Amino acid sequence: MASVWIREAKAGDCGEILRLIRELAEFEKLSDQVKISEEALRADGFGENPFYHCLVAELPPAPGEQPSQGIGTKIIQKVAEVALDKGCSQFRLAVLDWNKKAMDLYKALGAQDLTAAEGWRAFRFEGEAMRTLAGR
Amino acid sequence: MASVWIREAKAGDCGEILRLIRELAEFEKLSDQVKISEEALRADGFGENPFYHCLVAELPPAPGEQPSQGIGTKIIQKVAEVALDKGCSQFRLAVLDWNKKAMDLYKALGAQDLTAAEGWRAFRFEGEAMRTLAGR
Repeated sequence: MASVWIREAKAGDCGEILRLIRELAEFEKLSDQVKISEEALRADGFGENPFYHCLVAELPPAPGEQPSQGIGTKIIQKVAEVALDKGCSQFRLAVLDWNKKAMDLYKALGAQDLTAAEGWRAFRFEGEAMRTLAGR
Repeated sequence: MASVWIREAKAGDCGEILRLIRELAEFEKLSDQVKISEEALRADGFGENPFYHCLVAELPPAPGEQPSQGIGTKIIQKVAEVALDKGCSQFRLAVLDWNKKAMDLYKALGAQDLTAAEGWRAFRFEGEAMRTLAGR
């Protein structure tokens, strides 16, 4: 396969990152949940106390090759490296229950399905509920 | 009910915080997963780039009153305030599927069960799996 370079994202990557977020959301049938702008992505990730960290995979153009094979694995491997370097004892991923391909990959790489194994569910507060709670 | 003061945690609270983490883990039947020390809690939460933020509820001693009523709601209200102040569009909670009391509270406060509504599952990589991924 083509060689892949996994590196930390820069502020200048935010346009491409947003494009990929939208592509993923479309696949997940959740496009209506993508409300963030490129400017907000830049402000949130590249200020003094960033809200998120991001890795990007760069591929040199290689005609005739299938470049998408193995990128998910390489990124997860890099996340494991970064997590160990930062002293983390674990890291988690969220996945939709019909995305069998992703779940099979995570399991093959050694992850445990916490929802199946221990019964963890995710609850979300947003928008109106948050404002009501905060009395605003 | 007794008045409750919700405030940001200080490094000196870590002993009590760890006691509460252990108490929650015992309730969740997951005590074997609590491996963190008070020192690590302090280093992770009160260094230059904290890994977590924490609110604590303080109750003045009030004999004869039932002080535990409503603390969960007050803490969630405070989380909503902090989240809005920081520009967050949502916040999430993880809960075990047999903890009906907690789930009923979250729903009553306006949260959506993402696992039921959209099919989100949580996957965890830890220890041996992380080291294998990182080639260590």
